Amino acid sequence: MKTNKWLTQSLVVGAFMSATLISAVHADEGMWEPSQMPEIRDRLVSGGLKIDPANLSSFEDFPLNAIVSLGGCSASFVSPKGLVVTNHHCVYGSVQYNSTTENNLLEDGFLARSMTDEVPAVPGSRIYVTEAVTDVTNKMNKNLRDDMSGIERYKMLEDNRKALISDCESTNIHRCDVSAFHQGMEYRLIKRLEIRDVRLVYAPATSIGKYGGDIDNWQWPRHTGDWGFYRAYVGKDGKPADYSKDNVPYTSKSFLKVAADGVKENDFVMAAGYPGRTNRYRTSDEIENQFTWYYPEARAYREDIIATIEESSPADSQARLNYESTISYLANYAKNFQSMEESFQHSDFLARRQQQEKKFAGWLKKDSARAAKYMPAISGLNALVAQEQATRQLDLWRGYFSYATLPSVAEDLYRLAVEREKPDAEREPGYQERDMTRFKQSLERITHRYDETVDKAILTYLLGRYMELDPAQHLASVDKQFRLGNKLDEKKLAKTLNGLYKKSSLDDEAVRLAWMDKSVADFKKSKDPFIQWAVNSFDERMALEEHDKEIEGQFLRQRPLYMSAFVAFNRSLGLPVYADANSSLRITYGHVKGNQPKDGLLNLPFTTLEGIVEKDTGVEPFNAPKEELALIREKKYGPYKLDAINSVPVNFLCTLDITGGNSGSATLNSKGELVGLLFDGVYESIIGDWDFDDDLNRAIVVDIRYILWVMTYLDKADNLLEEMSMVRK
Amino acid sequence: MKTNKWLTQSLVVGAFMSATLISAVHADEGMWEPSQMPEIRDRLVSGGLKIDPANLSSFEDFPLNAIVSLGGCSASFVSPKGLVVTNHHCVYGSVQYNSTTENNLLEDGFLARSMTDEVPAVPGSRIYVTEAVTDVTNKMNKNLRDDMSGIERYKMLEDNRKALISDCESTNIHRCDVSAFHQGMEYRLIKRLEIRDVRLVYAPATSIGKYGGDIDNWQWPRHTGDWGFYRAYVGKDGKPADYSKDNVPYTSKSFLKVAADGVKENDFVMAAGYPGRTNRYRTSDEIENQFTWYYPEARAYREDIIATIEESSPADSQARLNYESTISYLANYAKNFQSMEESFQHSDFLARRQQQEKKFAGWLKKDSARAAKYMPAISGLNALVAQEQATRQLDLWRGYFSYATLPSVAEDLYRLAVEREKPDAEREPGYQERDMTRFKQSLERITHRYDETVDKAILTYLLGRYMELDPAQHLASVDKQFRLGNKLDEKKLAKTLNGLYKKSSLDDEAVRLAWMDKSVADFKKSKDPFIQWAVNSFDERMALEEHDKEIEGQFLRQRPLYMSAFVAFNRSLGLPVYADANSSLRITYGHVKGNQPKDGLLNLPFTTLEGIVEKDTGVEPFNAPKEELALIREKKYGPYKLDAINSVPVNFLCTLDITGGNSGSATLNSKGELVGLLFDGVYESIIGDWDFDDDLNRAIVVDIRYILWVMTYLDKADNLLEEMSMVRK
Repeated sequence: MKTNKWLTQSLVVGAFMSATLISAVHADEGMWEPSQMPEIRDRLVSGGLKIDPANLSSFEDFPLNAIVSLGGCSASFVSPKGLVVTNHHCVYGSVQYNSTTENNLLEDGFLARSMTDEVPAVPGSRIYVTEAVTDVTNKMNKNLRDDMSGIERYKMLEDNRKALISDCESTNIHRCDVSAFHQGMEYRLIKRLEIRDVRLVYAPATSIGKYGGDIDNWQWPRHTGDWGFYRAYVGKDGKPADYSKDNVPYTSKSFLKVAADGVKENDFVMAAGYPGRTNRYRTSDEIENQFTWYYPEARAYREDIIATIEESSPADSQARLNYESTISYLANYAKNFQSMEESFQHSDFLARRQQQEKKFAGWLKKDSARAAKYMPAISGLNALVAQEQATRQLDLWRGYFSYATLPSVAEDLYRLAVEREKPDAEREPGYQERDMTRFKQSLERITHRYDETVDKAILTYLLGRYMELDPAQHLASVDKQFRLGNKLDEKKLAKTLNGLYKKSSLDDEAVRLAWMDKSVADFKKSKDPFIQWAVNSFDERMALEEHDKEIEGQFLRQRPLYMSAFVAFNRSLGLPVYADANSSLRITYGHVKGNQPKDGLLNLPFTTLEGIVEKDTGVEPFNAPKEELALIREKKYGPYKLDAINSVPVNFLCTLDITGGNSGSATLNSKGELVGLLFDGVYESIIGDWDFDDDLNRAIVVDIRYILWVMTYLDKADNLLEEMSMVRK
Repeated sequence: MKTNKWLTQSLVVGAFMSATLISAVHADEGMWEPSQMPEIRDRLVSGGLKIDPANLSSFEDFPLNAIVSLGGCSASFVSPKGLVVTNHHCVYGSVQYNSTTENNLLEDGFLARSMTDEVPAVPGSRIYVTEAVTDVTNKMNKNLRDDMSGIERYKMLEDNRKALISDCESTNIHRCDVSAFHQGMEYRLIKRLEIRDVRLVYAPATSIGKYGGDIDNWQWPRHTGDWGFYRAYVGKDGKPADYSKDNVPYTSKSFLKVAADGVKENDFVMAAGYPGRTNRYRTSDEIENQFTWYYPEARAYREDIIATIEESSPADSQARLNYESTISYLANYAKNFQSMEESFQHSDFLARRQQQEKKFAGWLKKDSARAAKYMPAISGLNALVAQEQATRQLDLWRGYFSYATLPSVAEDLYRLAVEREKPDAEREPGYQERDMTRFKQSLERITHRYDETVDKAILTYLLGRYMELDPAQHLASVDKQFRLGNKLDEKKLAKTLNGLYKKSSLDDEAVRLAWMDKSVADFKKSKDPFIQWAVNSFDERMALEEHDKEIEGQFLRQRPLYMSAFVAFNRSLGLPVYADANSSLRITYGHVKGNQPKDGLLNLPFTTLEGIVEKDTGVEPFNAPKEELALIREKKYGPYKLDAINSVPVNFLCTLDITGGNSGSATLNSKGELVGLLFDGVYESIIGDWDFDDDLNRAIVVDIRYILWVMTYLDKADNLLEEMSMVRK
């Protein structure tokens, strides 16, 4: 699901492959596995944690068993009746889904005053409750041999992974994954209960939930009311089930209490959630490529596609509305990449990493056996990185080609038909039976996220970019399908594309869904030009994929070796090491704290209600509800006032180490009580995915007091306020 | 002279006429006359002033006698040999004037290593040394009668003013002005020595002096090296003289010592300078009109004219270069107006003023004699304001018409011929013999600030706006000259204008200058279409001018009455009252202090050298000299470091109450030593011209330590460093 927030995990197309070093973990740095809590006990206690760190070491116990994943977002149970709180932008799709011109939930917000008023979340919505995490390193490495080719290694790991998952999912109510830790040095099988009946309970008006919109995105000062509530439903037997009126609320093992007093400056906080991906252990070559080539180039694609969408769809048209979330997503990462570029230009990150690599190599060389074992991994990695970069332009183009919806959906459908000729266990991940519900939903979603004129314009743009590639990288199937010559002939291309779109019926949802059940032979007979495209380009695309896998298989040999050495190097310095984020449950701790984002300027730790009035222009995204502005002017703070700021705090800054996927993460006080929801980071901390800086890294949290204040005075969500367990000092 | 900084005084076209109230003077509010220093002695001493306030009460004594005006900018003597320091943007025109493609002083900066290397400032440059300020209220009010019409009053005041000035200027080396205080409640004759031989001594590279450019204008954090040095030269007899190689440096009565240690947070500071114009005593009707109509409308004119210039002149062309300062000036005030609008929207200024008016009226009514005398002044004022607003659209258009250079210059030249038929004393101010040098220089300046294509485009735009006016406001002379019908016919207009510009030779400097000496009869015979325009439109324009004067004459009756009452009202509350700024020498005091510009954000009081590196992109306006960046990276602070920030301070914030005209004002410490130069205010303090807010109003000063640091390490201006008197604690 595409969405517009950084903290919502999403796989950004890019070249993320390798391993390198950090010097020492900073004060509040680290996305720790629960099992590491005893290891960092001293830091937690001296930092201010009031409960036993051992209580945090197991996801089976409170408070971690209240922390769930929405797949891309984090969330948590806040009542014994399956009530889940997360970010507004994590439930936004469900609000949009239930919104109509007559009943505009986006504009008005939504509140079910009783359970019977709750409405189904957008198709595909899930609540995942982690039930078990098991080390499966040995099982994953079974049958691996040093002399395997890359592709052999890749496929063997894939087979082992699929076997583990298949076994784990035999219950039919679990979703399982094998996650690599330290880039394959270790693997863990993660077993999660998959709750399929998810309902929308409450979302404030978008003018609160998305206040500040894209303008304020990644910015401080911030005044976003980024929260929303779901409820998990299961069958009467207590097991996950598809939506049914007869389903009942899920009873979680535990739930978070709500600390209505919130936090104050310098207080200890921690967050538990599912951060998606970080790159804290990459080589200097990878870093240089990423920051000086990939980010600028990928940003150009994003900005160009946004411009293409905007030029081809009038403002406020249905077409533009359909692409709203696509634009948000593209813009969000364009801004992300720009920050990466800017931060990199101002930092000594690369030089520092190069120096660290020297130290690491020096340490390796001190022991000749160690050197003999690991030095080749370094040179091997660097050679692979170079090889991967040789095709970076084509690879990037292939990644963005998915923005042309009809050709891409045809590719997916044909791939499904091809994969379905194999036994389920042998199919490519994403095309197994376990994936079919989501596959179907993604086909359905296109209905609301597609417009022919726009899609044609995007495809035209992408083919223009294709023509700029080194001709040696050109693909025969593309040249043929789109009748491309040596030079771009815009008129001719327009005519070609008009023909293709006219003849294709993949824009029809029923047609798309019907293709899910067809055979390879059916595809080969089809007259639909995009189905023909999928068939005709298949071999060429598969050859590229095989090449990718060969390289990745080789990486999968070098990186674990490299990381073993690196972890040992750190342990030799007495430092704990946390693994890069990989969507598994992690804990990060820190403090409520402002910072100095640039010379001459200080970010204060809290924003206030008055800041909303100050920012408000009446024009989206600074158009808070009039009733809210009136309440603020009345200074109706109720019991939610923070004396230090003489107002109700809206958002706060803290030093938590987070990334995409942490959206909606419960932010807890020293006693494990809910004090807010993580929803963003400041602009200067975007590069934190690569290089954590104690001074610049700040996470942005929506303060529990603002949530409660709006629920109490504006939205009058008494039913939910009563359902939650409120605690005060 | 048009320039791009707020603090440089310039007459912004607008409707600035009336009087109203402030409740109480804020802590650091006030642009005080030197004579008021004893009155506010307690505030000064408790604020931190270490010298006797009585020393500040006379411009004839140190330090005020070191404070000079450049006409639009403030400046000060910093050596016994006529060395004057001011802002870079105040000497910018002179740098530009001496700059050539081969010897690009704008890019490289300029430093005369000896007096013989000093070069003439741009023609028209002046250094004014205030010698006497005399109360002339009675002389101005001589022969005024209550039953006079507005125009009679206006002319009588003008005659009295001219007589006073003429008498005062009989020396031929002085420039005199009669300034209204409290809107005509009092008048003072200001006698200033006019030094005509001004030479450019030193200006850092524009990449230092204008660092941050228009982007950072009115912004904090700031890193602008906004200083430059002139030298005053006089004849061998010590009297002002035109430029001559034989002239000698002027010996001022005193000069400022330089406090090389600078200031630290919370230190007392004061500034002496020539603030141009404030509007702290306007009626609520005037305020409403100004903020809700004038600023938005005038901003639209400015933005449109900028767009017109940019569309009609290719970037980097000579044409664009010629309009650079015009664009800067237009953009500067467009931003100013925008801030006014924004601040107004967020403030309760209008409501507060309306309440204050009620209190004032209440106080007036308490005493029936007082009420009888002054209440009519209030209703009279309000009626005048309404009358003035009735023609505001045409008035605004007339104001911006001056951006069409050729028609405007023709108007000026013809007016000169008409005025010259009268005895000098009876001529309109601006057309008297005393004005001729400046008149000539303004004709010369056009040569570098004009392009036919651009001028035509601007005139086309202005005539388009003219066509949008209420037809009842249309002028027969405009309709006729530009062959305008009921509807704008763009093609026809283009043809008409092409014809006019082709036939006109006013773009030739020699031709323009020659017209200065021609008679009305010569003008009437001329075939130059713009001269014809000036002649044909003269009567209509004069009728409008007479109307303006009638209104203004009426204002000149009501406002002094109103202000007398208002001042009495304030004195009844025990409050000192300072007069609105009027380009006369004023003192403002305050403290070095950051502020909170918006919810969640703090401005720190100092910026650092490192902030320059942080901002630098290598692209103008963030392209500091490479040698400077290297010096900063080396941390070569020398004796200029401020320990609290562990760096050399670049700019600092303080609570001084300033406005346009204060540019270049010497900022002094508690002992009257130079610690920096005022050059700007923060965005939120722009509305300070109307409504001072202690929390939001901040002036920006370039720190003396940054000036000295650049002079020492980068520009190696040893000769000047030696010439100045440096003091340390």
